[in-house]
Amino acid sequence: MTTIQDVARHAHVGAATVSRVLNGSGYVKEETRDKILRAIKELNYTPNEMARNLYHRKSGIVAIIVPEVSHPYFAEFINAAEIALFRHGYQSMICNTWREQNYEAHYLDLLRQQRVDGIITGVHTLDIAQYSSLDRPIVALDRTLGEHIPCVAVNHEKGGRLAAEALIQAGCRSVLQCTGVRRVSTPSNARHEVFEKIMAKNGIPCYNYLSKWNGFEYADYDQAAREIAENYPDVDGYFATDIMAVTLIRALQAKGRRYPVDFKVVGYDGTFVSKLPYPSLSTIVQPIEELASTCVDVLIERINGKTPELKNIELDVTFRQGESTKSFNR
Amino acid sequence: MTTIQDVARHAHVGAATVSRVLNGSGYVKEETRDKILRAIKELNYTPNEMARNLYHRKSGIVAIIVPEVSHPYFAEFINAAEIALFRHGYQSMICNTWREQNYEAHYLDLLRQQRVDGIITGVHTLDIAQYSSLDRPIVALDRTLGEHIPCVAVNHEKGGRLAAEALIQAGCRSVLQCTGVRRVSTPSNARHEVFEKIMAKNGIPCYNYLSKWNGFEYADYDQAAREIAENYPDVDGYFATDIMAVTLIRALQAKGRRYPVDFKVVGYDGTFVSKLPYPSLSTIVQPIEELASTCVDVLIERINGKTPELKNIELDVTFRQGESTKSFNR
Repeated sequence: MTTIQDVARHAHVGAATVSRVLNGSGYVKEETRDKILRAIKELNYTPNEMARNLYHRKSGIVAIIVPEVSHPYFAEFINAAEIALFRHGYQSMICNTWREQNYEAHYLDLLRQQRVDGIITGVHTLDIAQYSSLDRPIVALDRTLGEHIPCVAVNHEKGGRLAAEALIQAGCRSVLQCTGVRRVSTPSNARHEVFEKIMAKNGIPCYNYLSKWNGFEYADYDQAAREIAENYPDVDGYFATDIMAVTLIRALQAKGRRYPVDFKVVGYDGTFVSKLPYPSLSTIVQPIEELASTCVDVLIERINGKTPELKNIELDVTFRQGESTKSFNR
Repeated sequence: MTTIQDVARHAHVGAATVSRVLNGSGYVKEETRDKILRAIKELNYTPNEMARNLYHRKSGIVAIIVPEVSHPYFAEFINAAEIALFRHGYQSMICNTWREQNYEAHYLDLLRQQRVDGIITGVHTLDIAQYSSLDRPIVALDRTLGEHIPCVAVNHEKGGRLAAEALIQAGCRSVLQCTGVRRVSTPSNARHEVFEKIMAKNGIPCYNYLSKWNGFEYADYDQAAREIAENYPDVDGYFATDIMAVTLIRALQAKGRRYPVDFKVVGYDGTFVSKLPYPSLSTIVQPIEELASTCVDVLIERINGKTPELKNIELDVTFRQGESTKSFNR
């Protein structure tokens, strides 16, 4: 496999000179240029894109860091982000962090060493300080990472409100919501705070079921669903992300409760999983494709050296009406 | 951001000499080496991994090409492959091809230009010739790509047989299977051929519903499911991949057929989607994590220059018994 060094030797010049010719940067005597071009042709040399990018200090790669690729929300996000990045001329590198918590640190090193031109991150197990000290292009999906890193998210407060109103209108008398562990600083916590507030205001008992820390494996959802079905017999309204909501429906049915006659459910995300239950599941829809393209747009701006005033972007959520919040027949 | 060039200038040497010191390759006078190391320290230089890899002609990156990241089978495969590759010291680059059919060609160019060290591919829209002319490390997941590229798959013939036997034992009298379009050369076709043969042998009518070409979006599944529910009223047994099976259950219920009393279903893959229906879905389980780790092992061997005799690897499938193939009460 021909290298720059081979071409250089063949043309009796230094490798740096060959690179200058390849990149069209810097002065090269015409006679020398001809020698090099002839050598390139004779040796059938394919320029290593990396060499070019090295001189331009760009890798052409953007890393997308997520907790788990197989989670429908992240999978759909990655799908859309990858296509948006490709249209801007960037390759995506997907980085999965869940199983190994020190992976996130490793991926930040990649960025520091310029292996990637920018990062879109949907994880946050490290200190904000490690991110803000980077001074490289980063955009955070649904995570607050300090003052210098833009965050793209949805209006989770509205999401929590829509969910609460749906369950109240259906006639629920005692509700449960599945929340993440609160020590992760994420905008999505707002949906649970608002939900709880509205329930309190309406005098409806509201249980908060805390998920395991970052538990994203299906077995975690299944176990949590069984525990809920077992330990909260009086609850008649549930609020959880789609995949948890669907698993809950299943667990409650397995305990003999009829769906959606005996209990109501609202999901969150609007992923393909939300479309699987029959009768249909009501859910709060996040515009995942738009989240992805927005993250990409913001990141590309920064990669290209434009550092617009930092602003966090908040996209709208909508309520998809389903059978799962149809009023109780009481 | 300090570069090799800055270090070279500071030490009054050429960039190539600095690289030799960084990589510990080739002869460098001790006095020169010291000068360079001092310059590195003074300038607080972080070696660009890419420069190192460039000299070693390795990028440290493996590309994983799939039709759609959000499809549960591919998402779970990517999850496992990414972790396995990381343990071998490789970053993954996920390449999504579905929406744009010429992406596959572009990704092969990446490989040709040495941007990645190897490829695991689960797509095949291009000619076999374009793959075999590459002479670079490639492993195919569930795709036959000629004599020189190893293929890792499962025993799809056994899968088809297990599915057929489950529906026959349940008492089905007329069955339908959802197949991919047959012009893609893939080992998974064997499951449908075997399934059909066994039904024919048992005198049971077997309809083959051809999926749209590479139709992987949820809307495609939903539309196909409605068409099947509408146009095959006499069918009482269904065989399809998990995500299609679950969508079918939903569409049939929407038409008033009771699950699993009025019809039986067998899925294929064993992804998390297969665990969502209640009552439980019987399915043929592919060992997806093992598929991924096997692909990675085979690829790493080839990246490291070992070219063992080509052999295609076939992993076993198992039957997960569910309520969806419980016998009819006739």
